[in-house]
Amino acid sequence: MAQKPSIPKGTRDFSPAEVNRRNYIFDTIKKHFQVFGFQPIETPSFENSETLMGKYGDEGDRLIFKILNSGDFLSKVDDGTYSTKNSASLTPKITEKALRYDLTVPFARYVVMHQNEIDFPFKRYQIQPVWRADRPQKGRFREFYQCDADVVGANSLLQEVELIQLYDAVFTDLRLDGVHIKLNNRKVLAGIAEIIGAKQLLVDFTVALDKLDKIGEEGVKKEMLEKGISEKSIAKAAPLFSLSGDTGEQLSILKALLKDSEQGLEGIEELEFIIDMVEQLGLQSAQLSLDFTLARGLNYYTGTIFEVSPPEGVKMGSIGGGGRYDDLTGIFGLKDVSGVGISFGLDRIYLVLEELNLFPKTLEQFVQVLCLNFGEKEALASLKLISTLRNSGIKADLYPTGAKIQKQFKYANNRNVPYVILLGDKELVENAFVVKNMANGEQKTFSIDSIEDFIASL
Amino acid sequence: MAQKPSIPKGTRDFSPAEVNRRNYIFDTIKKHFQVFGFQPIETPSFENSETLMGKYGDEGDRLIFKILNSGDFLSKVDDGTYSTKNSASLTPKITEKALRYDLTVPFARYVVMHQNEIDFPFKRYQIQPVWRADRPQKGRFREFYQCDADVVGANSLLQEVELIQLYDAVFTDLRLDGVHIKLNNRKVLAGIAEIIGAKQLLVDFTVALDKLDKIGEEGVKKEMLEKGISEKSIAKAAPLFSLSGDTGEQLSILKALLKDSEQGLEGIEELEFIIDMVEQLGLQSAQLSLDFTLARGLNYYTGTIFEVSPPEGVKMGSIGGGGRYDDLTGIFGLKDVSGVGISFGLDRIYLVLEELNLFPKTLEQFVQVLCLNFGEKEALASLKLISTLRNSGIKADLYPTGAKIQKQFKYANNRNVPYVILLGDKELVENAFVVKNMANGEQKTFSIDSIEDFIASL
Repeated sequence: MAQKPSIPKGTRDFSPAEVNRRNYIFDTIKKHFQVFGFQPIETPSFENSETLMGKYGDEGDRLIFKILNSGDFLSKVDDGTYSTKNSASLTPKITEKALRYDLTVPFARYVVMHQNEIDFPFKRYQIQPVWRADRPQKGRFREFYQCDADVVGANSLLQEVELIQLYDAVFTDLRLDGVHIKLNNRKVLAGIAEIIGAKQLLVDFTVALDKLDKIGEEGVKKEMLEKGISEKSIAKAAPLFSLSGDTGEQLSILKALLKDSEQGLEGIEELEFIIDMVEQLGLQSAQLSLDFTLARGLNYYTGTIFEVSPPEGVKMGSIGGGGRYDDLTGIFGLKDVSGVGISFGLDRIYLVLEELNLFPKTLEQFVQVLCLNFGEKEALASLKLISTLRNSGIKADLYPTGAKIQKQFKYANNRNVPYVILLGDKELVENAFVVKNMANGEQKTFSIDSIEDFIASL
Repeated sequence: MAQKPSIPKGTRDFSPAEVNRRNYIFDTIKKHFQVFGFQPIETPSFENSETLMGKYGDEGDRLIFKILNSGDFLSKVDDGTYSTKNSASLTPKITEKALRYDLTVPFARYVVMHQNEIDFPFKRYQIQPVWRADRPQKGRFREFYQCDADVVGANSLLQEVELIQLYDAVFTDLRLDGVHIKLNNRKVLAGIAEIIGAKQLLVDFTVALDKLDKIGEEGVKKEMLEKGISEKSIAKAAPLFSLSGDTGEQLSILKALLKDSEQGLEGIEELEFIIDMVEQLGLQSAQLSLDFTLARGLNYYTGTIFEVSPPEGVKMGSIGGGGRYDDLTGIFGLKDVSGVGISFGLDRIYLVLEELNLFPKTLEQFVQVLCLNFGEKEALASLKLISTLRNSGIKADLYPTGAKIQKQFKYANNRNVPYVILLGDKELVENAFVVKNMANGEQKTFSIDSIEDFIASL
């Protein structure tokens, strides 16, 4: 009995047109990663469980897909553990491997394992899928790609400058003009927490601040109060909720606020350096702005924080983000390796390009030239022609069977084929072929011996 | 306490140089897939277990990686099943998803699910990793890529001709001249079994015949006897073990042997058509030959069978293979979809190219131009220069910190950087930069305003 097939929820099949559009984004990102001197690495899809578990918090641990041990996996489980019938206790006894949850932890593991082969500073990029057992919803999948570029082993703020240029280069190349690159610094956030006397509550403070867009100023204040941040502290921080003016003015307001925080002033200085350099170098199409409400969920950032929003008018969350972290590899025993990196959100960029109709039309062309099939002898002559075209890098194809010509034309239309070649018995005798331009219906005859004229006309 | 990190056995990290070499192969294959009119699809890394289980035999079922259900997976297991503590009975209760084992079954599932969107004949290619819980050994991994191209919904033998041309085009482009494309036909094998009176033992016959290279003629005969094929039958088939002459002579010997087998003669006719067409079209560097011992392990092939061996002198099994199957999608309820496809063995091709030193040297160049870093002011001028280079598609980079110049030169050497730019305080004043050719040590000074001259010289 045949099954009605389906795929697991939260996963996707990609059709040829979708693969082409996704590859267009991947290839553009990859090209600029390379031009900026980043080198590719790849890591296995699954890691040993102990490499991943405990690195993403309790919630993360729950969302990691575990792979069942092969063979008679229960034979190694002691009866005591087994008899409790407890999923959490049984899991580590029957699974040793888990699917990659992000690219950062495997990268840290890679750097530590290969530290003797790596010549630091190491600029690496990695474009691979990750898996999360999240509840699937619109725009959130259980399998999705991450596109990361990081520099490890270099403390210079020039890295931050380059990463801003890299965002600008990629989005300009994708013709997605006017993205907003938002900049902040964890030291500034820490300074703010220090000044307002809620140092130990920094994480709560930033997590609440991060929700400003979603729940508004009142909502943020309410959450801060609930977390135990005093009214007085919140009042001190209030100016942050409505900073205005250009980046210079904003920085000087903040400098005044943070005048007694060494860490805060260090953060301001870093921001000033980065903004000054970027202004001198110029950006092609992106806009750089400060955003002191930018905190990002992850707690491992220690310096600069980046986030990229799509151009005005497009309703979509961030399409990229990143930052500097002082200790990437400490969890695996290699101390003092500083890094800074950015990430591109493939699925969201895809949706934005689709909404703005920015995918090149050529992505829908899988075959440039289709030869119709008039029978065996004609097909042989056509295949010779097609070989020549293919050797010139032209996507050419022969309709595979001697079907009705009308059906063959329909096939060409469905595939957006721009040129159809007719080589029937008449042309065979005349050593010629007819090219039909499918856009305007024009027909032109070429001699087989001067196929180069046709190639040149493409 | 920091862990000493490792990766699961049978999996691999790929360094930048390895990724570049692998991508060189992938990109070459992909380019020709596209030029031959194949369209890309991608399917999820994991499928519902019922999509995969039972499709690869008992051994296959064992080698499929299963993913543990998320959350409290034991809550759905009845106490009766649980109390037996039996791995095989528990598995289907606690796993619903499994990692892709090959690309063929997911492709069949894809075709059935998307049959209304697909305009047949459908030429698809797919390059994605697969996972098998096989015992790892030299050249056999638990995670590896498959590169498949298939045409479904077309019965014409022209497909076979094109697939041979495709093999030729890819291996020629990889400069791997002289590969052997071996050709056989399951109908011929079936005809042989018919003639020798061991029709119901065809699978055993072909599996034994497939081992001719490994265990020799005597070994094959012994295995056939053990499987219940009579001495008389084996004697009739014996000429097959040592067929010689050109393809024409071989075909006529076989034609005589199979004169009473309708199916066998049909197979011969198909082979003749393919060989005749390929001879008329010509191959660039590959050699096509018949191999009646070629059976391939898989049982779903029904017509043509392909296998590609590396050039003489390279000790390595097949680097590609494929064939025609009459019923790809029947398992999922869609009858009578014929297909033919080929596959490229990435890991083995990699090893062959490495052994023959055929990887282009440029793959080792991650940075074409490195600017040394003489301090903040010089770095800013260098970054402007670098932006111009990058905008021209040149892989350019700035050494990230103001380290000792000797250290910076060492970094350039380790990375095979061909050109180093020096822009120190002297050059800054003169609005110039010095280019050092790292191969011969030559230095040349350019004005910053005429950077195009330098770009043109690259």
